[in-house]
Amino acid sequence: MREVAVLGVGMVRFGELWDRSLRDLFTEAALAAIADAGVDHVDSLYVGCMSSGLFNGQEHLGVLMADSLGVSSIPATRVESACASGGVAVRQGFMEVAAGFSEIVLVGGVEKMTDLSTPEATYALSAAADQEWEAFHGVTFPGLYALIARAHMERYGTTRRQLAAVAVKNHANGAKNPHAQFRRPISIEAVLNSQMVADPLRVLDCSPISDGAAAAVLGSVELARKLGRHPVVKVTGSGQATDTMALHDRRNITELAAVASAGQRAYAMAGRRPGEIDFAEVHDCFTIAEICIIEALGFVEQGRGGPATEAGETALQGRIPINPSGGLKAKGHPVGATGVAQLHEAVLQLRGKAGERQVPNARIGLIQNMGGSGGSCVVHILETE
Amino acid sequence: MREVAVLGVGMVRFGELWDRSLRDLFTEAALAAIADAGVDHVDSLYVGCMSSGLFNGQEHLGVLMADSLGVSSIPATRVESACASGGVAVRQGFMEVAAGFSEIVLVGGVEKMTDLSTPEATYALSAAADQEWEAFHGVTFPGLYALIARAHMERYGTTRRQLAAVAVKNHANGAKNPHAQFRRPISIEAVLNSQMVADPLRVLDCSPISDGAAAAVLGSVELARKLGRHPVVKVTGSGQATDTMALHDRRNITELAAVASAGQRAYAMAGRRPGEIDFAEVHDCFTIAEICIIEALGFVEQGRGGPATEAGETALQGRIPINPSGGLKAKGHPVGATGVAQLHEAVLQLRGKAGERQVPNARIGLIQNMGGSGGSCVVHILETE
Repeated sequence: MREVAVLGVGMVRFGELWDRSLRDLFTEAALAAIADAGVDHVDSLYVGCMSSGLFNGQEHLGVLMADSLGVSSIPATRVESACASGGVAVRQGFMEVAAGFSEIVLVGGVEKMTDLSTPEATYALSAAADQEWEAFHGVTFPGLYALIARAHMERYGTTRRQLAAVAVKNHANGAKNPHAQFRRPISIEAVLNSQMVADPLRVLDCSPISDGAAAAVLGSVELARKLGRHPVVKVTGSGQATDTMALHDRRNITELAAVASAGQRAYAMAGRRPGEIDFAEVHDCFTIAEICIIEALGFVEQGRGGPATEAGETALQGRIPINPSGGLKAKGHPVGATGVAQLHEAVLQLRGKAGERQVPNARIGLIQNMGGSGGSCVVHILETE
Repeated sequence: MREVAVLGVGMVRFGELWDRSLRDLFTEAALAAIADAGVDHVDSLYVGCMSSGLFNGQEHLGVLMADSLGVSSIPATRVESACASGGVAVRQGFMEVAAGFSEIVLVGGVEKMTDLSTPEATYALSAAADQEWEAFHGVTFPGLYALIARAHMERYGTTRRQLAAVAVKNHANGAKNPHAQFRRPISIEAVLNSQMVADPLRVLDCSPISDGAAAAVLGSVELARKLGRHPVVKVTGSGQATDTMALHDRRNITELAAVASAGQRAYAMAGRRPGEIDFAEVHDCFTIAEICIIEALGFVEQGRGGPATEAGETALQGRIPINPSGGLKAKGHPVGATGVAQLHEAVLQLRGKAGERQVPNARIGLIQNMGGSGGSCVVHILETE
């Protein structure tokens, strides 16, 4: 098995991007990643996208993107695991390079969500839940995560203010990220007074509906050294796992079993422990999600996610900076793109090129991408040489 | 790289299956494949599906199927390449086993199309074409293939009767296949007098709208020998390729470049030539498609697909039997399942267990699965030991 490196990364600034089509977004990110890598071709392509069918009436994205990039003839495959589609694209590319099936693989993620009205987009997103046992009965994702939040508050005493602290931290980071959809700090009071969506979650607890794309070029560590354009960033761990599809089938809805398993698999492959991780990009689709995730990944004890966040342990200058990019909350969440945008941020951090939001001495980073209410999860660990 | 074998296969009989849900269909096929393989677990899962979003309001199929099978915790990923989604699932599983990332991988395909009305299903299927440059302007898949048929007739003198001969042959084979949706022979006259869909294609030139699922269990050749349940069937070649998304961007619409490239890659990996193949399952979504495909794969000379079919060269007892299963035309075409159902047929043929439709002395088989109007293609070569 060959060692794999990230040769280049690129992304568009997330937002409501009505001036560009689905293929435009992907192509812009992909060309940026290819230019950043300094390669003259790619051998294969994976595109992560959750639901271009429902959002855009378009499937068959592998070909669409290969054609738009002018590289049609190469193998090109779309992968989907709801909001973890981008992470799955990274993993498939990682495996293809590690195994030696291809030398240079382009992995990207894209979603164009704002062409639909909010009710239509909510329907499309509900396709990540169990259609027959959850969505059909009217439960939406804010509703599912509100159930998790209530259970976490009941079991561990997590407070409404602690939830808000996640959003405040991520907006503070996002304000320093030129690729973020929202570049403004917010206050605890703003979160607490924002519109109720699904009690206890308010609109500022929720990641937005976004358009966007991100891409990365993967190749062998040997090739990365030969290209010599950037400090070499290796993919040292990759883990993927699943849980039950429906929330009601879980023994304890405050513990995200797929996140814990995917994390353990990635830690085992990389030979790392949570305490060795310098920073992490995690899937804060709702504030409560970040709290559950940092517990499942072992960054804080079970039940301590809220207090740790409130105490600043996960801030940019804290013990374990979480979501230096601004996370899904501030950077935006075009669902299929998110997992690859996390890789984009991790690579910038590990190269020491994250500007104002640079984590000091970042040498080992972790990225965690999740589908639905935690039904699927992909974790990667990245390290500088 | 390890040698890969097909340990087991399973499928449901294709048809209008209103009594079973999307997950029921996949699970039934998967359990049949697992039982056929005689394994007690699977390490990873790929599910090919084109558009469960548009057909069923359900994405996130990897988790849904892992959960339904009772194996949630394993990595489970949905792959999509329009009607080639099943073939892509087979290829991802092949690569994962070959590379040693997993020991036993379940690959399956599923589509449940008949819950929609025909106009709705036609819209969903059009998502495999270029939405902005083809589908939006009203062209449907019968229309696109009709353009190919007209060009082939003009360039090579292919006749209306030769197109019909493809359907007649495939129905003759399908009549012998207990898994086929249509188990009745048809005559040339029936095809020529059937309802016009898109001139020159009539309804009996078109594969049907179907529900169905198919699955296979992949593992190392070493494991296949150890299990000892069946004659060992190896995957010796795998090729995937793309072409332009839209038909109007191709230099010559009668030549399927992605099919030719995917075929060449699979032949090269297996070290085989077209003349060594004993039978093939190919993607006859329309009668003209089979004619173009057998030319692109090198089974007949360019332009000779029509006369060769009319002369019986591709019949069950012919020089190179094509679609002994009945093909998409008679077996049915639940789009995401088709590529895996082709593998099901090839394995039965290579085990010598294809009953009335057995190809004599079948030792090397080829399966070819295609997306859209040939924008994507996956080819595998399978051999007995």
